[in-house]
Amino acid sequence: MQPFWSEHYLLPGQEHQGSRAIAEGLERAREGVAEMVGCDAFELVFTDGGTEANNLAVLGLAADVPAGHMLISELEHDSVWGAALSLERGGWEIESVPCQDDGVVATEAVCQRLRQNTRLVCLQAANPVLGTLQPVREVADACHAQGVLVHCDATQMFGKLPVDIATLRADTLSVSGHKYYGPKGAGALYVRRGLTVHPVRFGESREMGVRPGAENVPGLIGLGAASQLAARCATEASDRLAELTDRFVFRVRDMIQPSVEVACETAARLPNTVTLLLGTEARQVQRAAGQLIVSTARSAAPADQMTRCLAAIGKSPSQIGGAIRVSLGWTTSQEQVDRAADLLAEAWDQLVESRR
Amino acid sequence: MQPFWSEHYLLPGQEHQGSRAIAEGLERAREGVAEMVGCDAFELVFTDGGTEANNLAVLGLAADVPAGHMLISELEHDSVWGAALSLERGGWEIESVPCQDDGVVATEAVCQRLRQNTRLVCLQAANPVLGTLQPVREVADACHAQGVLVHCDATQMFGKLPVDIATLRADTLSVSGHKYYGPKGAGALYVRRGLTVHPVRFGESREMGVRPGAENVPGLIGLGAASQLAARCATEASDRLAELTDRFVFRVRDMIQPSVEVACETAARLPNTVTLLLGTEARQVQRAAGQLIVSTARSAAPADQMTRCLAAIGKSPSQIGGAIRVSLGWTTSQEQVDRAADLLAEAWDQLVESRR
Repeated sequence: MQPFWSEHYLLPGQEHQGSRAIAEGLERAREGVAEMVGCDAFELVFTDGGTEANNLAVLGLAADVPAGHMLISELEHDSVWGAALSLERGGWEIESVPCQDDGVVATEAVCQRLRQNTRLVCLQAANPVLGTLQPVREVADACHAQGVLVHCDATQMFGKLPVDIATLRADTLSVSGHKYYGPKGAGALYVRRGLTVHPVRFGESREMGVRPGAENVPGLIGLGAASQLAARCATEASDRLAELTDRFVFRVRDMIQPSVEVACETAARLPNTVTLLLGTEARQVQRAAGQLIVSTARSAAPADQMTRCLAAIGKSPSQIGGAIRVSLGWTTSQEQVDRAADLLAEAWDQLVESRR
Repeated sequence: MQPFWSEHYLLPGQEHQGSRAIAEGLERAREGVAEMVGCDAFELVFTDGGTEANNLAVLGLAADVPAGHMLISELEHDSVWGAALSLERGGWEIESVPCQDDGVVATEAVCQRLRQNTRLVCLQAANPVLGTLQPVREVADACHAQGVLVHCDATQMFGKLPVDIATLRADTLSVSGHKYYGPKGAGALYVRRGLTVHPVRFGESREMGVRPGAENVPGLIGLGAASQLAARCATEASDRLAELTDRFVFRVRDMIQPSVEVACETAARLPNTVTLLLGTEARQVQRAAGQLIVSTARSAAPADQMTRCLAAIGKSPSQIGGAIRVSLGWTTSQEQVDRAADLLAEAWDQLVESRR
């Protein structure tokens, strides 16, 4: 990215050599993302991240067809739900598809809700809280058989599992750079060739007319590089992450309590994301284990993503209050995993002690 | 920005110290922008650039009031016009305010179009092609006297002239980082305290509920730093740029032809932006003067910004085809200005020669 901060200031689409060099840099970056997604470069529209990509898919696809019925899994991100619900005043009917208690949205649950006027189904590739993998391919095949489009928010998947569009078969697919070591402020939407997505913002025509606004050139260059890395490293990373995550869970159960529950333990999940139900106030544990960076649910309304996802698999408010989400990364070492488990155990002991 | 690439990976709004450090970094950046704009930090919403800021102002303000009448100067950017025109199907009436032949939108031209149901007037601070400064303060005072809001796209102004919100008095104001040496992918919208702007994208609540999506943290840190620099350097830069621009025009007229016209020469203009009407095919000159980076109008439809602005001041298609826009920067030296004039003159001679 460095040269694009310090030397190449121009924007693509202008009439001189420096601008063309930047356009070429951006196109190489687009090819990097295409390598990861397994698509052609021209099937990718750059955005400023996953939120914009999800908005663009839902609103941009909806703008090309008459108002109708849309199915959204209850586990989707706010950027999918919010965009979908905004369509209601335009005559769209938005229906939620529940997930099972194991955190998976059954293909059957989608199929039995398909109607004559269903235009779009939104199903994420992997859930950011539960880690559960969703049957995107099966849903896409079933939907396509009835002429229904499928949008897949795949922002949690890349860099963690080897996956591509040939496997997922969705019609549109969201990518967010900072979820796999790319820079913040850079993302992309895959749009299957031949499909029309209308712009959701207004301005000078850029990105094949789909997305106006000056390109975040250095950020997108970084997105391309991160995508190439993710494409090449995901298989190896996936195996390693799964092993370390298992080790972490084993040690936590060993040191704290065998009864610590792993959310959706039986389901196929991301190798690096695990939500533990500790059975005690998770935010106190979080505070006591200050060096450990984990997520907990926000207790105040409106419900945050963690609360929503755990409620979707039938967890009670007190169970949700006892939940921490732990994520491992490519550089996480075995020592760090062990130290994390130790920190958790110490925090736990401290809390138990203080209650005596 | 560097530490926010290489060390601080978290996002603000999470429950640990690293996240709070990032939130503090972002708030310092917001104060940097506030210093430049002359507002309170809490009156600023971060965006990914000027296009999003303009969209947010027009659509976000419109969403808070009943559909009505909106005035847009004909010189506004596509991101203002596009957003405004999208409101027509919601019952809004969008009316264009013409500019005079000197590239200035007269306050009177706005006032005589105000109606009982006029809700918003959009007037840019400075035109990116013509360089003309617009009477934002006078228009704002006149509009406020009738309870009408004013949005000002000020993206071309900062870093070039000392200006702040106390001078411009608009209710909302757009900022784009890369227009004054900040990074691409970072901008802001000033929203006067007490005013409600509805979000234009959907997702997790961030930026005081007005703008969802993961913040481009390093980009916004850079925006803050660039804004502080712009606040401190604009007065000095302005004087220097005006002198160099005058020198450039003088030399061009001296070497090429005294008849080279400066667009809107009599109007108050930005000190660094000048459009020259060469009276010959500008794109050929541009190609011949390869090292010189200038803008020319695109001849093909749809009309680009340069074509639109020059047509607005009554220039013919052949005059527009002979126009080049030259912009100077803080680091432009006298030698570079002289070299640029030489390059132009050489290109000109070459063209004249080839026609003999």
